[in-house]
Amino acid sequence: MKTLFTYNWMVREDWYKWCEDVPLEELLKVRTGGVGGILHTLFHIIDVEWSWIRVLKGKPDFQESFDGYKSLEKVKELDELFKKEVQEFVGSWESGLENKLLQETRQDGSIETLTWGEVMRHTIAHEIHHVGQLSVWFREIGKQPVSANLIGKGLTILEELKK
Amino acid sequence: MKTLFTYNWMVREDWYKWCEDVPLEELLKVRTGGVGGILHTLFHIIDVEWSWIRVLKGKPDFQESFDGYKSLEKVKELDELFKKEVQEFVGSWESGLENKLLQETRQDGSIETLTWGEVMRHTIAHEIHHVGQLSVWFREIGKQPVSANLIGKGLTILEELKK
Repeated sequence: MKTLFTYNWMVREDWYKWCEDVPLEELLKVRTGGVGGILHTLFHIIDVEWSWIRVLKGKPDFQESFDGYKSLEKVKELDELFKKEVQEFVGSWESGLENKLLQETRQDGSIETLTWGEVMRHTIAHEIHHVGQLSVWFREIGKQPVSANLIGKGLTILEELKK
Repeated sequence: MKTLFTYNWMVREDWYKWCEDVPLEELLKVRTGGVGGILHTLFHIIDVEWSWIRVLKGKPDFQESFDGYKSLEKVKELDELFKKEVQEFVGSWESGLENKLLQETRQDGSIETLTWGEVMRHTIAHEIHHVGQLSVWFREIGKQPVSANLIGKGLTILEELKK
């Protein structure tokens, strides 16, 4: 669980760096698919990751629109603000939490029962999926996207080799 | 681990269904980003998933090009052929395998040491990333993409509720 969250955070940092060389106009341009834009996607990923952690903690989630965050700096600041709480939650994750139940109200008003483990994996997959969309849009503007490779980042091997 | 592989297989089946309504010409059309096409991406996902499992098992992996698989039926047949072995491997996965080491030769000839757990997560993230690209291309041809939601698929909750 922690490996995949850490992977997502590393990839996100790379995307911020990659975005520094892209004019704001391109970052904000409405595009086909997903939530419809590069910076909006990064904002959406941060929003959804934090919101699900908040839901699991039984606390209010994030309800603001992208309108107030239309610069790379503002999105990065929001990420920094939220990530602390997410990292704390992920860092203290243990297998006993896997099967805790969450009652969630669907958009149609019906109730869905989820496990905490399911919600955590949903959050992981959510980011990777949206990053796939970013990679297409980056190619469209003639730029090489961030690598999606999980191997080669030293995510688990460094600790293992130290033993 | 198993949840995310099962999620990927379910999403892939949905993509096959979605692709049935798309003319072959559109499925084969060369597009911007990723491996450059809808059917080619599905082929690539199957190829990479199976190949990594084969590498972990110390067996030869898949080396064929997409040229021989340019129809939805052929790609689905290949998936069926490979998935049996992948499902068996994932089904017998246990935490003791997480930190087994794999020596892998990089493209530049240098040697990289990976853990098996890292390779498995790389395989999972690889598919989700490429499916994100499919979702953009489906919108480009005016079609709604397959949902990337992991929640709502009953992946873990059904077993938990039976207890």
